[in-house]
Amino acid sequence: MKKNKHECVEYIRPVRDVLDLINGKWKLPILIALSFGNKRFKELERDVEGITPKMLSKELRDLEMNKLVIRSVYDTVPVTVEYSLSEYGKTLDNVIIALRQWGKKHRAKIFENA
Amino acid sequence: MKKNKHECVEYIRPVRDVLDLINGKWKLPILIALSFGNKRFKELERDVEGITPKMLSKELRDLEMNKLVIRSVYDTVPVTVEYSLSEYGKTLDNVIIALRQWGKKHRAKIFENA
Repeated sequence: MKKNKHECVEYIRPVRDVLDLINGKWKLPILIALSFGNKRFKELERDVEGITPKMLSKELRDLEMNKLVIRSVYDTVPVTVEYSLSEYGKTLDNVIIALRQWGKKHRAKIFENA
Repeated sequence: MKKNKHECVEYIRPVRDVLDLINGKWKLPILIALSFGNKRFKELERDVEGITPKMLSKELRDLEMNKLVIRSVYDTVPVTVEYSLSEYGKTLDNVIIALRQWGKKHRAKIFENA
């Protein structure tokens, strides 16, 4: 059953890479909200319940920097800013689906035990 | 493309539940290390590179409280304490696999662009 340390550390590494990108409680919810379509800041603030504007702004900057989210500025009056998932951001689909499936089972289990 | 707010919030909820359980940068790496077999505290400290004993101890308590990890105490001299994945903890397999697959692609992409 026990395998060597090297193998275990190697196995952990790519997961840590992902966690570095999507760490915290807000990034995945933001990405999910954007998977429902492009959104403006105020819409995201409504969809990601409990997030403060300051935190949303910081998280969007991080996501943009890591090329998961695209910020588009339209030359309207007043200027319109819209956020969307990048093609790369969309590839996180399987991660989100796996988390969601487990989360649904977990919720069912909690209610079962309540 | 745009769907209503209710649907989006409903979609996000189970993912937030999971993030509450496995938040932070250490819990998933600890769970992965334990998926390689039962381990003692010192072994985990080695496998999860960079974690401090204080943090490892806190994270293990959280994981135990959430029934993802089992702490077994054996009546040896001196006492032996061993950590293992619970059956419930093992069901996180799919989440870990999805994160790992994405992480590996992400790493390849980074090196490609470097």
